[in-house]
Amino acid sequence: MPMTKPALDYAHSHYDQFLQELKSLISIPSVSTSTENRPDMRIAAEWLKARLLKIGMTTAQIFETLGHPVVYAEKNCGKANCRTVLIYGHYDVQPPDPLDLWQSHPFAADQRDDQLYARGASDMKGQVIASLSAVESIIARDNLPVNIKFIIEGEEEIGSPNLPGFIEEHADLLKCDVVLNPDAGMVSPEIPAIIYALRGLSYFELRVFGPSHDLHSGVFGGVVHNPAIVLAEAIAGMHDSAGKITLPGFYDKVRTLDKEESLELARLPIKSDYYLKQTGVPALYGEVGYTDIERIGARPTLDVNGMLSGFTGVGSKTVIPAWAMAKISMRLVPDQNPDEVHEQLREYLENKMPPTVTWELKCLGGGAASISDRFHPAVLALSDALETIWGTKPVFKREGGSVPITGDFQKILNVESVLTGFGLPSDAIHSPNEHLHLPTWKKGIDALITFFYKYAEK
Amino acid sequence: MPMTKPALDYAHSHYDQFLQELKSLISIPSVSTSTENRPDMRIAAEWLKARLLKIGMTTAQIFETLGHPVVYAEKNCGKANCRTVLIYGHYDVQPPDPLDLWQSHPFAADQRDDQLYARGASDMKGQVIASLSAVESIIARDNLPVNIKFIIEGEEEIGSPNLPGFIEEHADLLKCDVVLNPDAGMVSPEIPAIIYALRGLSYFELRVFGPSHDLHSGVFGGVVHNPAIVLAEAIAGMHDSAGKITLPGFYDKVRTLDKEESLELARLPIKSDYYLKQTGVPALYGEVGYTDIERIGARPTLDVNGMLSGFTGVGSKTVIPAWAMAKISMRLVPDQNPDEVHEQLREYLENKMPPTVTWELKCLGGGAASISDRFHPAVLALSDALETIWGTKPVFKREGGSVPITGDFQKILNVESVLTGFGLPSDAIHSPNEHLHLPTWKKGIDALITFFYKYAEK
Repeated sequence: MPMTKPALDYAHSHYDQFLQELKSLISIPSVSTSTENRPDMRIAAEWLKARLLKIGMTTAQIFETLGHPVVYAEKNCGKANCRTVLIYGHYDVQPPDPLDLWQSHPFAADQRDDQLYARGASDMKGQVIASLSAVESIIARDNLPVNIKFIIEGEEEIGSPNLPGFIEEHADLLKCDVVLNPDAGMVSPEIPAIIYALRGLSYFELRVFGPSHDLHSGVFGGVVHNPAIVLAEAIAGMHDSAGKITLPGFYDKVRTLDKEESLELARLPIKSDYYLKQTGVPALYGEVGYTDIERIGARPTLDVNGMLSGFTGVGSKTVIPAWAMAKISMRLVPDQNPDEVHEQLREYLENKMPPTVTWELKCLGGGAASISDRFHPAVLALSDALETIWGTKPVFKREGGSVPITGDFQKILNVESVLTGFGLPSDAIHSPNEHLHLPTWKKGIDALITFFYKYAEK
Repeated sequence: MPMTKPALDYAHSHYDQFLQELKSLISIPSVSTSTENRPDMRIAAEWLKARLLKIGMTTAQIFETLGHPVVYAEKNCGKANCRTVLIYGHYDVQPPDPLDLWQSHPFAADQRDDQLYARGASDMKGQVIASLSAVESIIARDNLPVNIKFIIEGEEEIGSPNLPGFIEEHADLLKCDVVLNPDAGMVSPEIPAIIYALRGLSYFELRVFGPSHDLHSGVFGGVVHNPAIVLAEAIAGMHDSAGKITLPGFYDKVRTLDKEESLELARLPIKSDYYLKQTGVPALYGEVGYTDIERIGARPTLDVNGMLSGFTGVGSKTVIPAWAMAKISMRLVPDQNPDEVHEQLREYLENKMPPTVTWELKCLGGGAASISDRFHPAVLALSDALETIWGTKPVFKREGGSVPITGDFQKILNVESVLTGFGLPSDAIHSPNEHLHLPTWKKGIDALITFFYKYAEK
């Protein structure tokens, strides 16, 4: 009998319970960016602490930070000299708006066919519960094959401002051989993935101030520079006609892909059709000279995440707005530095902005990109485990998203992160009607159980 | 005794009552662009009808239109062959938002020192009540020296979509020798003005559609064209570096200023300091090669009145927005045609917009610019009347705002409009804390009384 069998059997007979736990965690609207959800953040942390103790972790505690609390738990294996896996997760979620586009309440998980619809179902409460369920299944039937530590934060969706400090302060407590981060995802329900590179993030809010109050566009139109137009011009100048970002020095530190890696990425079973279908755009767009996969995984990007100025209601109002605002963020690749990108944006604006307005640039967070060793023992163990459950080798991917914390673990704890996860690209994370494909999620629990045993042996 | 004296005496002893009437009309939130204020539009029209009968007009009635109703009233002079003045007004107002910037409730008129604060106090409920009060004062003490007709519409702030049709249908009823339109304003409390030219307006809403839903900017950033950036690029391309508008053919029909008129405009006592102070901008901006006065009165402009896309709350949300929207409007000068401007904008967008997005352009209204005879008898009578009350000759101005209806009266009734008014440029019309300078408004009532007598003689 393979040594994983008792734990897998436990998992198979407890899936309904695991799903109930997930629905319960989802029902707490832990939107980290929303001040009105502040009490819910603590409720979610308390929920997790209680759950971690319930599944059999030796200790579980809540650590205060300057922002939302961090949940920590640990339990050792049955013998000496086991390896230690630190499982990272986050219990916060993105805001649910625009609310009117949801077909069911974002915080009342709604199961329709094989999908569970809710904010956080995929990103990443589903992944957190999968990890807890895998550990629960082993503890219920066996000694742990590795020491397990959990660190579950509440600020991932706002850029983890307090986690680096927390890791630094608690470096001894967090000591481990590898970080398992299940905040990444699958390529498709049939193809699991291991992420070896992540993009970083720099997030800004830019405000342009024109007149001291909204002006009548007839009475003053002609002598006043419209701040919405100034903002539009600043944004328009950030890309050239080849889709390259024009901030001074922006590409100086971008690591180029070597031939071997380019070829490996080209083997990923993802075609343009896939992106067209996932996004619904009439045609794709990107930096000239790169493939879609490279554009997302290996090249930096700049996006406007939001924009607001003047009158935006139904009908017409003839004003020159007093101000205009844009949320602007960049996805960074190795070896770009978020602080340097901040300076590059500031320098660009200092050159670009006319003397007819004033402006203000706020950095709302960020983190460097990260890249891992593709031949680390934990990576090999995870690869074996995923192949065992899915019957196919996982693909190795560079991911377009950002988990800045991966770079922090590397820098502070000197430890690599293994990134995987059981969400799908079609899960609509960060969007209305986010959902989780339950059959894939269930296999994910099996894969995590298998991983802990395989990693103990490697 | 000058024949104006009894009416002026009546006015002087009834100012408090006039002010109460104004406060009462202001208290009706007649925001024409807001569907929720639809019932208030009718209440305002009924209020005016009742008031017009009360001041002694022979008939007053409400005419239905496809939109908000029109109020009409008339009373003839005491003898045969009097001239007829059609007094134009509008009872609708701009939306009061942003509400949080008001120091008092926008629909509860608040008198602080010499100013009356409220939405519509200056634009133009104050001017409507001044006209009614002037007519009331004469009727109370004398026969009317001219036949008086009132036409007071409820759709000026949304581009008067139904008034041209109304004028056409009721051309006989509206027959007159001149239109008096007190929807313009003074240069300063000391300097009255007569407006002989107004800019037209074209108002549009442009929507750019990218992905079918908000996307995660990490997972998809690099292959999807960001609709907010596409919109910004479209807006940025609408002006060149000299501040000229780039829409194809936009300036083809713009009438150039002749030397005499340029010199006359240059005599206006308005300096750049004035605009800096009124607007609070750090520096003025405008089309290269023109003075401030020319830029506002004699040159067309293009402004963004509002802009919205993606996440605009506090904090950060890493999305590629599904769509982006801008309200874009142009102030037009003779002889630009709003329909042609619509086509010019459409042609510009057809050339500019990339195949990576779809877009939609809606025209929300508009009207042509207008220009009048500076030596019309009613213009001369008004000039005399203003000089009598203020002790100084009025200035003759081109106004940057739009009263498209002026062009309609000209075209349909073949009659000129005389534009004046007793608001000040600092009244913050269309803005929070709109206000009316009461001493100027009171003089305005005297000036209108004087005008009716003088026009009868010219």
